[in-house]
Amino acid sequence: MRTIDWDADRDCVAMVDQTRLPAEYTTYYAETVDELVESIRILRVRGAPALGAAGAYGAALAARRADAGSFEEFERRARAAAERVAEARPTAVNLAREVEAVLAELDRAETVAEARERTLTAAERIADADVERNRAIGRHGADLLEDGATVMTHCNAGALATVDWGTALGVVYSADEQGKNVDVIANETRPLNQGSRITTVELRERDVRTTLIPDNASGLCMQEGRIDAVVVGADRIVLDGGEQFGDGAVVFNKIGTYKQAVLADRHDVPFVVAAPTATIDSDSDADEVEIEERDPGELREIYRRPNAPEDVPVYNPAFDPTPAELIDYLVTEDGVFEPPLDADAVLGGEDATDREAAAQST
Amino acid sequence: MRTIDWDADRDCVAMVDQTRLPAEYTTYYAETVDELVESIRILRVRGAPALGAAGAYGAALAARRADAGSFEEFERRARAAAERVAEARPTAVNLAREVEAVLAELDRAETVAEARERTLTAAERIADADVERNRAIGRHGADLLEDGATVMTHCNAGALATVDWGTALGVVYSADEQGKNVDVIANETRPLNQGSRITTVELRERDVRTTLIPDNASGLCMQEGRIDAVVVGADRIVLDGGEQFGDGAVVFNKIGTYKQAVLADRHDVPFVVAAPTATIDSDSDADEVEIEERDPGELREIYRRPNAPEDVPVYNPAFDPTPAELIDYLVTEDGVFEPPLDADAVLGGEDATDREAAAQST
Repeated sequence: MRTIDWDADRDCVAMVDQTRLPAEYTTYYAETVDELVESIRILRVRGAPALGAAGAYGAALAARRADAGSFEEFERRARAAAERVAEARPTAVNLAREVEAVLAELDRAETVAEARERTLTAAERIADADVERNRAIGRHGADLLEDGATVMTHCNAGALATVDWGTALGVVYSADEQGKNVDVIANETRPLNQGSRITTVELRERDVRTTLIPDNASGLCMQEGRIDAVVVGADRIVLDGGEQFGDGAVVFNKIGTYKQAVLADRHDVPFVVAAPTATIDSDSDADEVEIEERDPGELREIYRRPNAPEDVPVYNPAFDPTPAELIDYLVTEDGVFEPPLDADAVLGGEDATDREAAAQST
Repeated sequence: MRTIDWDADRDCVAMVDQTRLPAEYTTYYAETVDELVESIRILRVRGAPALGAAGAYGAALAARRADAGSFEEFERRARAAAERVAEARPTAVNLAREVEAVLAELDRAETVAEARERTLTAAERIADADVERNRAIGRHGADLLEDGATVMTHCNAGALATVDWGTALGVVYSADEQGKNVDVIANETRPLNQGSRITTVELRERDVRTTLIPDNASGLCMQEGRIDAVVVGADRIVLDGGEQFGDGAVVFNKIGTYKQAVLADRHDVPFVVAAPTATIDSDSDADEVEIEERDPGELREIYRRPNAPEDVPVYNPAFDPTPAELIDYLVTEDGVFEPPLDADAVLGGEDATDREAAAQST
């Protein structure tokens, strides 16, 4: 199944429950907006592109569950419920954007029934477009990898972070389709262990040789020459570094990505970011991006066992910023881009051959 | 109590059982050489200086438990048992060295009873000298810290890594004694979580303000200007980088230390290594140091809960090498040294005022 999808029989959102990995690969059905919001918060569904689909389906779900005497009252309630989905996690721009894209269908509808049909159709188009885009990202990125390469990845920017195929891991899958033998070294990715719980499971399902390491070992792996490329996804890309970084793009991705980028730079290992253009936020600069701080409990306990004194102060940021100077390649559905990653190049450049087609299909 | 000590009533080795932290602060009694070897292997006692004392007491324990008809047979059995202690962990040079130092007492004895007394007295001198050395390291290192500084540390080079007081954390405690307000940011230190389980407990016992972070967040902390110095311990320091690093010292310490050093270098944060001269191995170069690979189970499970597919391949090295070019200060009981950290400077330089006194007390 897809990572997230609409279940027509149950008339609700279905998703792989990633909080149950690696022990179980099960489906969770979010029948209400509350259940979907909770699913986003506790990372039952995670990864920027999958969160985009979660937002889209969430707006459709809000429209299906909203009820009222008048169309205006229906629309008000549907919007209010959908806004709660949009705000379930603050950093991922895709979530709020796709909620808005689907909500726009409300203005085009004249009846509640039409609004419900239009929002669901829009959500399904968004999910389908994600898969097409990831296939394009994979094809472009795979050209950067040699036969026999070992790729290090951080977190999970795979099929399970998207509707299907993945971004960073999509690059690996496309290289595999091209007949290249590619190995993966997966960082555990504390504190939520997406690397050990999710990436290793997903890669094994697709028969890619994978070695799990603690995040702390990635530097030694580079010293030992084990890594040919680092390929990661992105939660949000801004094209203006603001006061902190100055000119040039900044990639916000899972906490620890910046450390990998600095190490890759020192060891001349190519550092590749693979992400759809939907991840690009051209309205904000790096200073404006709020870095989500997550629950201290994620450090104080692991799998409900004590990992630290229960009242110890914790700093648990979810993302960090990596400036363009540390990025060798940005791969989008439109092609491969090298620094400077300015708006003209990345959003409108000559490489943008696939972009119009993708935009139409959205 | 001290981290590791001789229990006269039970006539055996007593230690804080660090595998029970943070839930319980309890004493484990190693009554046999087998129990001591197991304790070293499973990290009931850990940290290079504490392992030195474990080796010393282990040799004394071996002499006390060995029995035979003749002195020669007693000596053969005691040596064989003590060798098993020396080999319990391969990278820590202190362990094997202090086993040998105590075994040398066997040659000076003429009876089994005298051998048993001499070995125990020698082991106790070694433990006492560790505490004196750490106090000296702390005093020297504290001079590097400003009032109000925030120190990042990795793993646990504290009282619980030594017989008492600690090396890296000894620097913090001595600064505290000098009346300086010092905060600590403790890296969790996967995969064995010494930072969250041990360092936070120890610092709280001594009323030092401490914040726990995932290892992945240390880069962001530096970007945000939260760190004034990184202070770590060392498991082994070689003065010749070998083919891999060329001239200059290389510090082998807990996996992930190298990543902290590279990040500190990029952000102009002073990187300080605090360790006794006993950690210096002047017989080997960096190429000759074997980096211990630990059990894949440390990644596949956390606190006995599944953290990855149970058969996933794992690379789990315990240490990494940090070359002198990334080290701003090496603090030993003899003083503060800056690169180049060659043998003349570190082992025989003018700063070595305390060294002869320390050597005599050993």
